Amino acid sequence: MAKLVLVRHGESTANRDNIYTGWNDVPLSSKGIEQAKSAGLKVAHISDFVPTHIHTSVLSRAILTAYIIADIGNFLYVPITKTWRLNERHYGALRGMNKDVSRKVYGKEQVLEWRRGFDSVPPLLDKPVIDRRYQTTDMHLMPCGESLHQTQQRLMPYIEDHVFPELRKGHDQLIVAHGSSLRALIKKMEQISDKEIVKLEVPNAQPIVYTFDQNLNIQGKEILR
Amino acid sequence: MAKLVLVRHGESTANRDNIYTGWNDVPLSSKGIEQAKSAGLKVAHISDFVPTHIHTSVLSRAILTAYIIADIGNFLYVPITKTWRLNERHYGALRGMNKDVSRKVYGKEQVLEWRRGFDSVPPLLDKPVIDRRYQTTDMHLMPCGESLHQTQQRLMPYIEDHVFPELRKGHDQLIVAHGSSLRALIKKMEQISDKEIVKLEVPNAQPIVYTFDQNLNIQGKEILR
Repeated sequence: MAKLVLVRHGESTANRDNIYTGWNDVPLSSKGIEQAKSAGLKVAHISDFVPTHIHTSVLSRAILTAYIIADIGNFLYVPITKTWRLNERHYGALRGMNKDVSRKVYGKEQVLEWRRGFDSVPPLLDKPVIDRRYQTTDMHLMPCGESLHQTQQRLMPYIEDHVFPELRKGHDQLIVAHGSSLRALIKKMEQISDKEIVKLEVPNAQPIVYTFDQNLNIQGKEILR
Repeated sequence: MAKLVLVRHGESTANRDNIYTGWNDVPLSSKGIEQAKSAGLKVAHISDFVPTHIHTSVLSRAILTAYIIADIGNFLYVPITKTWRLNERHYGALRGMNKDVSRKVYGKEQVLEWRRGFDSVPPLLDKPVIDRRYQTTDMHLMPCGESLHQTQQRLMPYIEDHVFPELRKGHDQLIVAHGSSLRALIKKMEQISDKEIVKLEVPNAQPIVYTFDQNLNIQGKEILR
């Protein structure tokens, strides 16, 4: 039996200000830092949980949340991988836009569709934004905007290669990521339908604890609110 | 030309209390956290310095210093490796002992010899302390106490495999480690004699910036006090 703990980062300044973020690199708000500390205490109290690896995105809000959790849990020494494949869904041309403004610009129905449809792609950027954190990544892999489905497709290869094999060996794992990238992962693991996934929200900094047997069947799930 | 920046962690509670630490995992003092932030600002202002990799020990005081520097420098996304090979010199049976007490127990001359002699080995532990951070490491590699020379011998293979090749490619690197492990590295890089190394002190959280050509000749050295 192995545990997989998923944590969405603490509140970011963009969460606070109701702005589409995606791949924009925004910091945690002061509330977000407190939430991360609280998540750290919850993770530290999970019985018999010692991750052998921490997985996170290349976005500061997730990385910082992971560090705070590892510090409080006294496992700063655990290896950490930061990968663009765990990044938040890329919101394309919506990124940086206030959500209320987006409804005025594009219409309420259209925005709802972009946010809720599993295969809905937001308006794309003309070209990917390649800042220095993506310089060693093949530019052709970099999106200009993604549906939740596309987010899942680029996330799962990492999970299949680096997380599932460890769980099969009985090694606990910790993933600190984002609202939509975690929704995409949970959808796959729990086989949630395209329609039902709409209802799933992953709140900031509430650890979700899965217990797996060695065939990767889910034996338990608990949300530490 | 590539830059290698070395930083000793901020003051630990053991530094503050004048205690031999070595492989004991002690936290940063509040002064140490401030020193790490100050080091972060200095590193952020090094012209054209963007590390492609961060290297640190498996001890919390170094890891936390590395995170603080990366956060302030806006390069949290950079991959980080935490390895026991960058740990502080292992002080054997002295670890956890107050330095004044050690002089009373063993005599001033003897303690000076242990601290200063390049090949002097402190009193050994009966067996290595294997806490969970070393569980995936071959137990036969774990020391019961080390001379500075032995520290250098277990540190250099990591540097030769993971730091020097990157510098040759022109990739900047950041190492956040410890007083004696950095002394051992500097001794090797600057070819300092066994006698002269005694005089070298590496203060907490003062970045040392080396510039190398592609043949790994040192072209410049600056200490950011």
